[in-house]
Amino acid sequence: MMTADGPQRISDSTVHRLSKYYRTLTYLSERGIKTISSEALAQHNGVTAAQVRKDFSCFGTFGRRGLGYNVLELQRNIARIMGLQRKWSVALVGVGNVGRALLDYDQFRIQGFQITMAFDSDPAKIGREFHKVFVRDVFNLENDARAGQVEIGVVAVPVVAAQAVVDKLVLGGVKGILNFAPINLKAPPGVFIRYENMAIEIEALAFAITNPELVRND
Amino acid sequence: MMTADGPQRISDSTVHRLSKYYRTLTYLSERGIKTISSEALAQHNGVTAAQVRKDFSCFGTFGRRGLGYNVLELQRNIARIMGLQRKWSVALVGVGNVGRALLDYDQFRIQGFQITMAFDSDPAKIGREFHKVFVRDVFNLENDARAGQVEIGVVAVPVVAAQAVVDKLVLGGVKGILNFAPINLKAPPGVFIRYENMAIEIEALAFAITNPELVRND
Repeated sequence: MMTADGPQRISDSTVHRLSKYYRTLTYLSERGIKTISSEALAQHNGVTAAQVRKDFSCFGTFGRRGLGYNVLELQRNIARIMGLQRKWSVALVGVGNVGRALLDYDQFRIQGFQITMAFDSDPAKIGREFHKVFVRDVFNLENDARAGQVEIGVVAVPVVAAQAVVDKLVLGGVKGILNFAPINLKAPPGVFIRYENMAIEIEALAFAITNPELVRND
Repeated sequence: MMTADGPQRISDSTVHRLSKYYRTLTYLSERGIKTISSEALAQHNGVTAAQVRKDFSCFGTFGRRGLGYNVLELQRNIARIMGLQRKWSVALVGVGNVGRALLDYDQFRIQGFQITMAFDSDPAKIGREFHKVFVRDVFNLENDARAGQVEIGVVAVPVVAAQAVVDKLVLGGVKGILNFAPINLKAPPGVFIRYENMAIEIEALAFAITNPELVRND
């Protein structure tokens, strides 16, 4: 939606929900289901139908009142908005336990994120293959990322090495960084950083179990 | 904060931020730093000082104007609120790539989440040890979880098996479930489910790179 101030900005929560709707629509289309109501889509995702309609209204309305949404059309529209209709070239830096899990993580591949290169600093890993991806020397990260036209870098190295890796990825031309190291990182404008910490959600569980009366259900 | 309607409910975003503040405070206290201003704590976490003060006001004010927060005291308070001042007994179900990464994931251990049991359905894995955790037969999940007083179950099994695993964990007495399978799951009231999907954040990156003008910076 355009406003006098330019395009309406989209919150993280909306973007996350679009990812989830997209999964539901993929699931439905694989089962030959042609249409879905905002109510059903909402129920699949633990939100309200009003939320679903509001999320889609940011991008123009795709549904028709009384008829619901065309599953394939909506799936295509979300893919286009999210940049999921194309493949993304991804470099993984750090081939430890988390890195190796990501090399074999179906959800990356299915959504079009192809880890084309892996890097490590450990001589015992450099030159080996893990899940069919060759491990390169992180010393060459900038040049190799540039040569390989890497768009997204995944940082799965220890905290002390993370910022240096980000700096090299930026010099190598990446536009986005997914960081697994538990530390805040800096990148210049135009390079996006997102953080993944698998302990955050288990801590939210600990909070909920400790304070059931404080947990919002909406 | 108590209101006429009972305790004020806390949003997911606030809980996630508390986790992040807690990490900053741990980092500072390990380096012998005694006090921190809301401004500095905000800067460490990419939020505003007003947001920091608002987040803490939900739990009563811990800081003193002009003096900042006492690092150790604030760390202890957040730990108490989040349930991080204690150990949690965790069962992992599914010893695939993601499961094995979690068995060796420092951030779980550091925050007090101890994976005391692991389960799988694969005869080639049952009876083996991964990262010093013995793999049990998922057939015995309910009884073993109960006997081991497991509080949190981590579900890292394929989509088709996930709901059955949750049902067994619930019967086994767990109070919280962290789910890595890309599917929405059901649990009875009083059992909390949180979802972890490592592709969601990389999709948010794809969205940001595709639509830089739509990304909120707040």
